[in-house]
Order: sequence, then C-alpha cells, then structure tokens
Amino acid sequence: MKVPRAQDNTSEEIISKRVSLLKAMGIDLPHTTHYRFDPSCTQGNIENFIGVAQVPLGLAGPIRINGEFAKGDFLVPLATSEGTLVASYSRGMKAISEAGGCSARIHADFFMVPYMFQFKKPEEAAQFTQWCEEHSQEIARVMEGTTQHGKFHGMKLENVPLGILIEFEMQTGDAMGANMVVVAAHTATEWIAENAPNIDRRDCHLVDMGKKAVASRRTRGFGKNVTAEVRLSEDVLREVFRTTASDWMRLYRAVQQHWSVSGAQGQQCMFANGLAALFIACGQDVGYLPEATCGSLLASELPDGGLHVTAEIPCLVVGTVGGGCTLPTQKECLQILGCEGSGKARKFAEIAAGVALAGELSVLSSSTAREFVDAHQRLGRKNPP
Amino acid sequence: MKVPRAQDNTSEEIISKRVSLLKAMGIDLPHTTHYRFDPSCTQGNIENFIGVAQVPLGLAGPIRINGEFAKGDFLVPLATSEGTLVASYSRGMKAISEAGGCSARIHADFFMVPYMFQFKKPEEAAQFTQWCEEHSQEIARVMEGTTQHGKFHGMKLENVPLGILIEFEMQTGDAMGANMVVVAAHTATEWIAENAPNIDRRDCHLVDMGKKAVASRRTRGFGKNVTAEVRLSEDVLREVFRTTASDWMRLYRAVQQHWSVSGAQGQQCMFANGLAALFIACGQDVGYLPEATCGSLLASELPDGGLHVTAEIPCLVVGTVGGGCTLPTQKECLQILGCEGSGKARKFAEIAAGVALAGELSVLSSSTAREFVDAHQRLGRKNPP
Amino acid sequence: MKVPRAQDNTSEEIISKRVSLLKAMGIDLPHTTHYRFDPSCTQGNIENFIGVAQVPLGLAGPIRINGEFAKGDFLVPLATSEGTLVASYSRGMKAISEAGGCSARIHADFFMVPYMFQFKKPEEAAQFTQWCEEHSQEIARVMEGTTQHGKFHGMKLENVPLGILIEFEMQTGDAMGANMVVVAAHTATEWIAENAPNIDRRDCHLVDMGKKAVASRRTRGFGKNVTAEVRLSEDVLREVFRTTASDWMRLYRAVQQHWSVSGAQGQQCMFANGLAALFIACGQDVGYLPEATCGSLLASELPDGGLHVTAEIPCLVVGTVGGGCTLPTQKECLQILGCEGSGKARKFAEIAAGVALAGELSVLSSSTAREFVDAHQRLGRKNPP
Amino acid sequence: MKVPRAQDNTSEEIISKRVSLLKAMGIDLPHTTHYRFDPSCTQGNIENFIGVAQVPLGLAGPIRINGEFAKGDFLVPLATSEGTLVASYSRGMKAISEAGGCSARIHADFFMVPYMFQFKKPEEAAQFTQWCEEHSQEIARVMEGTTQHGKFHGMKLENVPLGILIEFEMQTGDAMGANMVVVAAHTATEWIAENAPNIDRRDCHLVDMGKKAVASRRTRGFGKNVTAEVRLSEDVLREVFRTTASDWMRLYRAVQQHWSVSGAQGQQCMFANGLAALFIACGQDVGYLPEATCGSLLASELPDGGLHVTAEIPCLVVGTVGGGCTLPTQKECLQILGCEGSGKARKFAEIAAGVALAGELSVLSSSTAREFVDAHQRLGRKNPP
Repeated sequence: MKVPRAQDNTSEEIISKRVSLLKAMGIDLPHTTHYRFDPSCTQGNIENFIGVAQVPLGLAGPIRINGEFAKGDFLVPLATSEGTLVASYSRGMKAISEAGGCSARIHADFFMVPYMFQFKKPEEAAQFTQWCEEHSQEIARVMEGTTQHGKFHGMKLENVPLGILIEFEMQTGDAMGANMVVVAAHTATEWIAENAPNIDRRDCHLVDMGKKAVASRRTRGFGKNVTAEVRLSEDVLREVFRTTASDWMRLYRAVQQHWSVSGAQGQQCMFANGLAALFIACGQDVGYLPEATCGSLLASELPDGGLHVTAEIPCLVVGTVGGGCTLPTQKECLQILGCEGSGKARKFAEIAAGVALAGELSVLSSSTAREFVDAHQRLGRKNPP
Repeated sequence: MKVPRAQDNTSEEIISKRVSLLKAMGIDLPHTTHYRFDPSCTQGNIENFIGVAQVPLGLAGPIRINGEFAKGDFLVPLATSEGTLVASYSRGMKAISEAGGCSARIHADFFMVPYMFQFKKPEEAAQFTQWCEEHSQEIARVMEGTTQHGKFHGMKLENVPLGILIEFEMQTGDAMGANMVVVAAHTATEWIAENAPNIDRRDCHLVDMGKKAVASRRTRGFGKNVTAEVRLSEDVLREVFRTTASDWMRLYRAVQQHWSVSGAQGQQCMFANGLAALFIACGQDVGYLPEATCGSLLASELPDGGLHVTAEIPCLVVGTVGGGCTLPTQKECLQILGCEGSGKARKFAEIAAGVALAGELSVLSSSTAREFVDAHQRLGRKNPP
Repeated sequence: MKVPRAQDNTSEEIISKRVSLLKAMGIDLPHTTHYRFDPSCTQGNIENFIGVAQVPLGLAGPIRINGEFAKGDFLVPLATSEGTLVASYSRGMKAISEAGGCSARIHADFFMVPYMFQFKKPEEAAQFTQWCEEHSQEIARVMEGTTQHGKFHGMKLENVPLGILIEFEMQTGDAMGANMVVVAAHTATEWIAENAPNIDRRDCHLVDMGKKAVASRRTRGFGKNVTAEVRLSEDVLREVFRTTASDWMRLYRAVQQHWSVSGAQGQQCMFANGLAALFIACGQDVGYLPEATCGSLLASELPDGGLHVTAEIPCLVVGTVGGGCTLPTQKECLQILGCEGSGKARKFAEIAAGVALAGELSVLSSSTAREFVDAHQRLGRKNPP
Repeated sequence: MKVPRAQDNTSEEIISKRVSLLKAMGIDLPHTTHYRFDPSCTQGNIENFIGVAQVPLGLAGPIRINGEFAKGDFLVPLATSEGTLVASYSRGMKAISEAGGCSARIHADFFMVPYMFQFKKPEEAAQFTQWCEEHSQEIARVMEGTTQHGKFHGMKLENVPLGILIEFEMQTGDAMGANMVVVAAHTATEWIAENAPNIDRRDCHLVDMGKKAVASRRTRGFGKNVTAEVRLSEDVLREVFRTTASDWMRLYRAVQQHWSVSGAQGQQCMFANGLAALFIACGQDVGYLPEATCGSLLASELPDGGLHVTAEIPCLVVGTVGGGCTLPTQKECLQILGCEGSGKARKFAEIAAGVALAGELSVLSSSTAREFVDAHQRLGRKNPP
C-alpha cells in the first residue's frame, strides 16, 4: 500500500490512480471528487491531491463594523458543521449592528521567527550580540532581499541560558507571512553564520514555528494584534438578547472567575468557533487557531444600563493573498467580505475581531436568558442524542 | 441587506434567494454552489446554507499503528491549503511504519461541562454539597435519562470562592459529546434547582464550553486523553530523515528550552497542523483545536543510537457519529480510515495521535537536516514571495 | 575550609567552633550570636546553627475578622525590612475594621504528595489502577498508621502518559503537614510496592514537593483554600483611602487587563508582601510563598457607591504546631494572634487571608490617590536613591 | 485597641508602649525584644517596630563558584526553620565543589516598572507613542535626575487594547531597585503628563509592582537573569550522592513530565527553599520570591556517565545596598559571602544561582537514592508526627 506519486503530481492521471487505490480498498469518493476546478491550481497548497473536503457554508450577518480598514455592513461566510453556530453569531452581529456597529483597531502587525544561537563560551555570546547590533542594517537588507512584499520590522536579541535568541520580525503585507519570514530569517542566519565570528551552524536552531498559544507573545502580539469593541444599550440587550446588563455581568463575573480558577489560557468563551469557521471559509491557515484564542473578553456595565464589551485578539495570523486565499471557493468567500487580494489583510483582521465579539455577546446572552440549551436542541441536532 | 430565511431553511428556493442576494452584490459563487448532495442533509450542521467550502484533500501515509483500537496500516486524508504539510506528515508516517509502527493508547475518555452554583451564605453552600453527594445516583439517572448513548462518568464538586463548582462528566460513546453533555448537565441542574434547598436559578451558571486550552484539564484530560509513541532506530533516522539521534536531541533540547523561556502552552512543535487537517477532512469540530494542542512531545536518546519519542494529547475531543461525521465528504474520509460510525471513536483518536507524532518527527528532523526551508520553498509556494 | 560538625551539633562548643571559623576569616557576628534561648531548641529546624537572623518586627492592625475560626480584632506581627509595608497594611486593616470587618472562609484543607508509578505495558498500568482502588482502605490505614494527627483525605489516581500518577492526600490537623504526608505517602508506596503486582521500585517516583505555583492545584486548592471578603462603603473609601469606588475600579480594570496581557500567574497585586512578613514572623515555611501568590483579587462596584472586594488564596500552606512554630520569637508572634498551638491552623489561615486583603485594598487605593510614591519616599528610604 | 505611634516612632519610649500594650493583653515578648542595636537603625525598614523575629541561621557550604563576579569557595548563611534544608544544600554544594565548581553567569540586569496610559481615541494613542519616541532622551534624563546610582536602561512601548503600555527600565547598580525605579518612573510620568498632548492624569496607571510570577518577564528577565551550571562526573555522583546519571535522569524525566502535566509555573524542584533562606539571612525582599521560582532546571546525561545540570533563574531581584542590607545581622551575613555594600550585587546573584543549583542536585539525588524520607525523618522532625 503506497500512495501513487508522479513528477506532475496534480495530473488527472495520477489523481485517478490514487482514487483507484482507495476504490480497490472498497472506498468510493463520489463527493470528494466532485469539484469543477483544474487540480493544478492546488499546487503549493497540497500534495497527493485526491479531491476536496466539502464543509457547509452558512451566511451570517450583516455586521456593521466601524474600523480603520473595515467600514460598513458585512455578510460573513462561515464554514462549519456545528449546528447553531451561524445562527448564534448572526444574533450577535444583529445586536452589534443595532448598536451602530463595533469599532475595530489594529494595535500591531508583524510576523516573527525565532532562532537560537548557542556558544561554547559566554564571551562569544557577548561578542555575537554586539556583532549583530552593529550589522542590523545589513541583516535587514538580507532579509528584505528575499521578498518583494515583506518589510523588515525588527530584530530582538535576548541573552538566554542556552545562547542568544534572535527574533526576526517582518511586516508581511497582505500575506499571512509564515513562509516569507521563515525564508527571510533562514537566509539571514545563513548570512550571519558566514560573516559573524565563532558560529557553528549546528548550534543555530529554528526554535519555533507558532501554531500554539505562547505567553510571551501575548503582550506584543503576533500577526495582527486586533480588538473590536461595542456599547450595547439597555434596549438592544432587551430586544435582541432578552437580557439586562446586570444579569449579563453576573454571568460574566462567574465565568471570569472560572477562567482564573481553571487556568484558562484564553479568557474568552469561544473565539475558536467563529474564527475556525471564518478561517476555513476564507482559506486561512487553521493551524494558527490556538494562538488566536489566547485573547481576552473585557466587559463593564455602563451607568445607563448598557454594556461595554471588548474582544481582544493579540495573535491573529491571517492574510488575503497567497496560501489558501487563491483557491476557488476561498476566493469567493473573500469576495463576499470585500477582502480578496492586495491591501485587504488588515480589513480582514478587523472583520474577524468583529465576528469574535459577536459570538461572545451571543453565547453569554443566550446562557443568561437560559436559551442556550434550547437553541442547541433545536438547531444542533443530527440524531437522537 | 438581510439574509433570506424560511421555515424550511434548506429548500432549493431559499438557498437560491441567498445566492441571488450575493449575486446582486456582484459576487458569483460557481465553486461554492458546486456540490451533489441534497442540502437538507446539512440540517443540524449549519444555518443559512449557501454551499460548500472546498478544502483540498491530500492522501498521507500509510502509517502503521499498533494501538488497542487502531491496528494496522492507515492511509490518512488531510484537508489543508498549506503546501508541504501532507508531504511532511507522510515522511513522518514512513519513519514510523519502517520502525514497525507506533503504539497508541487511550488514558481517559469523558466529556465534562462545569456549572457554578452561587450562595448567599457559606452554610448554604455546605448543605448543598452534602445534598448533591447524597443525591448523586439520582443526578446520574437524570443525566442518563436524556441520552441513549451517554453514560454517567462522574460528578466532581469543588468549593470555590464564588460558590460550588460542579463538573458533570459523561462517557459519550462515539459522539464527540458536547451537545449530549450540555443537555444532560442542563437537565441535571434543572432537577437540582427544583429539588435542592436554597437554589436561586439566576445564581446557577454554565461557566465553560471548552474551545480553549485550560490548565486544570491537562492532568485528567478532556475528551480522549491519548498518546502515541515510537522507537526509531539509528538506521531509520539516517535513511528516512538524514539525521542522527544526537543531532535530533540537540535541536530538541534547544526547542524545549524555548518552550520554557517563551511560555508555550503546548510543549510540542505543531500538533495543530496535522490535527486541523484531519479534523476538517473528517467532520470534527475544529473549535476544539486549541485544547488539542496543549500536550507535550517527549523524547529521549536510546543507548543504541535510536530515539524514543512520545506525542501526548490529553484533551482530544473527537467523535465518529453525529455532528459533521454524517456529511458526504466527511463520511468518505472516515471510511478511508475505517472509522465511520459506531464503535470507532477511540480508534480515530489513536490514529490522530499517530498523525500528530508523525508531524513532530518530520518537522524536527527536517530542521535538523536543514531541509525545512528548502522543502517549503519547493512545495509551499503559490507566488513569488 | 570545612564547616565544623559534631554528634551533638547544637552544643555551645561546636557552635563556637563555627563562629570561630568565621572570626578567623575576619567576620564578627555580634548580632547574629545575640539570642537568649538554648540552641538545642533549634534541633529539627536547622543544621550547622551559628545564630539568628534578626528581622525587624512591626505591629499592624488591628483588623476585624468575622471568620468561622477567627472572630474579633487582631493585632498582626509582620517581619520585614521593606519600609512602608507595615504602614500600608495597617491602613488596609483600618478600612476593613471600619467597614465592620471582613468575612473569611476555608473552602478546602488538605496536603498532597504525588507519586508516579511507571509500567512497561499498558495492561500492567490498568491492573495496577484496579488493584489500588480495591486496596484503598488498606492504603488509608497504612498512611494513618504513620501519624497521630493526620487523617487520610483521599487518593486520586490519574492515568498519565508515563504511568499512573497517585496523589496521596491527608488532612494534617494543625501541622503544615509536608513532612507528615511525605512520610505517610512514602510508607504507602513501600507497602504498595511490596503487595501490588509488577512494581519495579526504581519506576516509582516522588514527583513533586510543592514550593512553586502549579496550575492544576488552583481549582481544588493545596493546604488551606481560603478567601476573605469585605464591603467598603463610599464613606470608608473617602475617609480612609481618599478615593471613590469608580476611581478604584478604573485602576483595577487597568491592572486586571495588565495581568492578562503580561501573563501574571497570580491575579493579585502583592499578596507576597504581607504573607512573607507574616510567614517569617510566625515560623511558617517561606518556601511555600510561591503557591500562596497564585490566587486572585476580585472586585466589583456596588450600586450605593461602595466596593465589594475578595482576596482568594487557594494554596496557603500553613500550620500552628511543629516546624518553626516552636521557636522562641515565632511562638510569641503566634501568641499575639491567639494562634499558638493546637486547634489554631484554620484561624491562622483566615487571618492570613484578611491580611492579604488589607494589603490589596491599600496598595490600589494609594495608587488611585497618587500617594503610593510619596509614601515610599517618606517611609521606605534608607539612603539617597 | 490601637497601636501607639509617635513622631519619633523608633524611640525607646514608643516601642515600650507598644510592648506594654501586648503585655496588658497577656503576651510577653522576652525573645522578640532581645536585640542589641539601636532601633532607630530600622527606620526606612519597618513601621511600628516592636522587636525582632529571630530565624535560626545555619552555615552551608563551602560551594565553589567560577562566575564572572563570584570566584572561589563560599560559606553560605541560610536562615530557615525547616530541618534538613541546610544539610541538603550542603551536600549539593559539596558535589559542586568536588566537581571543580559551577560556572555562573548574568544574562541581563535591570528593573522595570510598567505604566498604562489610556486614551479616548486611537489617534491620540498613536500620537502619544510617536511623542514618547521623539522625547525618549528627555525622559531618560528625567528618570536619571531622580537617582545617583540608577542608569536608564530602556523604555518599551506597547500598543495594548486599553491604551499604551510603557515599561520603564533602569539598571539599578547594587540596589535591589524597586523604590528607585518606582520614583524614577513616577517622575517620568508626571513629566510626560505635563508635556505630552491629550493626557488625562486619571488615565495614567501604575499597573504592576512585581511580587508574582509573570510569563512575559520570563524571556527577557527581571532583576538579575542568572544561571549556574555544573558537570558532575560518574564518580562524584556515586561518592557524594550514591546515584548514577541514568538513575538520576530516569527520575528527572518523570519529574519533568509531571511539571508539564500539572502545569507547574517553575520547572524546577525547590528553588524557593534555598532562595528564601538566603533572602532572609541577607536582607533581601522576600516578596520577590515568587518570580525567582519561575525558572527551569535543565539536565542531560553526558557520554562519559556524568551529568550536565543548569539552574536558570530569569527573574532574581536582589541587591547589596539599601533596604534590609543595612540591618545588623543581615550585614554580617553579607560579610560571610563577601557581598557587603557597593559593587557586590552581581556577585551575590551568581552565588544565589549556585545555591539554587546545589539544592536541585541534592533533592533529586536523595530521592533517587531513596534517602529523601529518611533524611527528613532524622533531621526535620520536631515532634512525633
């Protein structure tokens, strides 16, 4: 049992060999093989292509966003198989829109790749740090020489027990940026290894690729550091959510206390739901979901009976060009948001923050109003439990 | 701008109204609307259905797994748009298979829903705890009465500052179980509120729904607590990965130190990549990816020049019935793994652990052999950077 | 250079040999050797005794506590060399007392020692778990047989990747309990190793002794899980602290946000200050300070312009018999609190929680009123900066 | 019941009034009041002085340290009431010395105080950041103008959801530095508030004072970022510790796994024990113990049967001038270490790291050799358990 491969690995022929292999094992793929694009468009996205996973798409919204980049009312495509999710987010979006929209804001925007350089002697480490600081402009040039779109953003050196940690940072334009910065950082370390004194290449290590919650990135951010916030009046709370600010805050404080008591890494309810659905619909790298969930939901009661709620996502790694953004359905979903192509990544990030905020408002409100379980009974059921 | 809805919300008519709305905004959806199933099969999975997100599927493997439930060689469908991912996991699977397979094991298996009960006076909390302990069998019966497949697994009471925290636990059979346990726990709290003394329903709160890394679940697990481990010989390391145990361990220790220094929540490289791709392919709830990444990668050098590596995933929330498992392409992918339907959830969890292990082996090895960047240049590129 | 030791290691003769060794190195110890007790009373507390560290003691309070065990007004001895600390805590105690006192409450009370048992084969681990559950009463008897005061509290078994983790729990009466439970758990593991099948003693490890913040202990607690809470009226806030609830909450929310953003382990300002000073004064094991700081400060504004504030200390390891409690000045300090000897440990824990609460109120208030720096300039200065 | 205070709050008269108050309550303080220094020397260290807490001092060592600042053999004064502690650390020191000493190294050295500036509008925050960057030299001058010894080390600005976070950093010479940097940062914020546009002083908050483990400080360090490391040969392991590298590593891996599984904040066994004892003896601020425990213990087996072990303490806040360093016994203890006064803080930090390393070696070895419990039975017992 071996997966058939060929030089041209997306030809009809080789794909059909792979499908036949499964067929021979008794597995038919009528749905998986039902797509209408030329498989060669998946080059750079996948190896050993056999077809497509089809995830149901629902249309949520509209949500009004008053961001710096995203301005207006947006219908939001969400890909999920979890019943209730689209309905619940839509309700949150309705509340936000009736409140006049949420504001949204990018606080920081860069991708980072860390390398560790190890040394036999402390003096060598100290010399190395000095050398790097003296050559930072050349290193910036080397990094920028590997890319048309990326801009050098910084180079942070830390003296850690095992050597010198260098965090290579770039602004990645509208690309999500992982590949771009890995190549730039790799090229920079090659250049450093050739030019700096005392470097043994075997002691120079790429030490992290993200795809996990990391506490030290929480303050500065990673990818887009973005927030969305809204003021909901007493009326909106009552009419959309059948709740009051004081009931909402009572629940919020209990939930907040539970985050502390249980050691929750993200102090939010379910950023992961809406962001996963948005990521899948819009061709984002779903592997970056864990860091996207390490933010916080902040809420306070207003003197007039309303609520002020902020969703903070410090580590949102997204893009609108390259990667999965070029694939057929993904492109269509980005078009729905007006986020296809260049110049749209920050707009997309602001919309994502609005979506996350909508979900938090809705889930806490439905729980307050004791409707959470009923909604799931009604919408989220495939079979008898 | 309002999303059209109807009583029968998956009829051709209402779907086409939604698609027309987008059309009127200038957005065509030729790919999104290209599927060959009856949309009514998505009821319970999505609201406001407009079509499908098509995520490229690649075939990785085979991987040999010597688990308690998964035994044999498996081809693994992975849905992703990140180039290199399938190739990299395949290489790790090859090493595992050449080593005779990885063992895999389920350490715990239950889903949990926490409720907080608040009281005005400490005495009331103490009485309540005693009351719950005296009535635990009745509570178990109430919970089990809401489901055909779930079994009561336990009820943990903790005295926390704001009141009594009850963690309602169930074994959920082959269902992922969130809905099942939410309904059971909700029904139990309704019963408790009716029967126990001094309960004000407004002070009884559902305080967490998961979808995030939570430290307190790390020890006991949540969903499936599963590990996969393998011994790779010197030969396999050299032939498959062009590396040695000592080079591998040098890198591993640098990376491990970086996990400490940076405060990484999961002490692993990229569980998120393979698990996201497997979740999307096989109809799992991708919102549970954050907790799936809070495990560890453990490695030690063997006296004979080999390596012993373990991937530990304490909080893997997966299922093989209900939810997204019933959808057309998702069902086909579960069939590829021999994991469709009843009696397969633990088998699926063991395979997932094997997949995660394969990815870790591969990414660290390619980095050791300085092939990581080359591979991404070759396979993971859509456009000039 | 070797520290002189003898069979009777607290005789005048051997102490004076050690002091002479330092004298010969040019170091006089007129203050360190100035004490009026028989050094033999330090047996069991220290080895190689040379004298005493003299830490200044200040008298704070009184603080009114309405606990279950601590009831009334308490003067509190605090040992510290940090100027302002006693004054600041006293101010917080004044506010609490004027508010009619803080309530205090013990939520849990046990000490725990974890052992890891490793096995070659999964079946052995499963058998072992079953065996332990069947023999839990005998294990409880073995543990209780090693102590006059400790009571078996529970034995938690978890199936972890490397084997079976057993957490041996005891209620330790008025002793802090580390030694008691280590001996009991050790004896239990010896008994288990003799009687259970398939145990290799080299694969049975004591894996933690505390003395650090541990997330998994946050929910259940460790030692005393205790809270203190108070309602401060608008008048008390103005008169004692020259602040208002809304100014206080504005600062609190900024600080709370910083705890999230910076990844603070304890969501409190400075429990460590007051607890360190109380621990040193009263003969507690200061090594348990890190876990004592992993609690939270919770605050909310009241409709009448007041504040409700709770200090939560889930892992407070303290005692009133044994260890340092028997030493001369330590005994005197425990007497000041009415906490000397048997039956006083929970009372002591409630007072400690009140002290921690007082410090939080004071530091946030002084910062709100912009008096924090002035106070430190006035009271906390030894020399020109 | 009111604690007597006076203008001259350390006069014999006022102290004796306080002691009399306790006497009237039936509490005698013969030991607490037994000291031979003039109480006025405690001004700036304590308020409402009543006497001294006398903590037993033991002499550990010698330990050989090959640091940049600490070079040679050191006897180490440890103040504790926990039996076995001095003996255990002495054994670790013996092993280190027989191995030729541990190396030690300072990686970073600065104290930091964070302020949050909040703004009504995003534009104001952006302007403010730019303004601060343009005026950084003036801010540095303002900070340095408040102190004779502190040097400006940096000013880090982060754009966080609630506003702009400024971390004011200083090198504090031989002072621990908290007061120094609080005053400098406070003065800087006053200057900023006067000169920068759009600042409302009520929206400028001091948001942290340390005294807790904080993840974001783990990478860069706080206070002294210091490590100590040693290579122990097979012979030293056998002769001093009656263990072997492979037994030691087996235990270490189990313990390390438990750190992961339990969510331990510091991946070390008991830094807190030795550091608390050293802090109390030498007049350090014990409130900084929690951050001192968030480091790691790193170990690997050497090909020749030896061990390489590193103790890493990224956040060690210590000093040798000011604060408690000027007190009588504290000064004597600093003299024992050759660390009294100016120019000694880094030397002290290197010794502290060596002490922490010694403790880790000893506790893991005694546990490996199954002597841990016996030692505690023999040395750490006051009474029948």
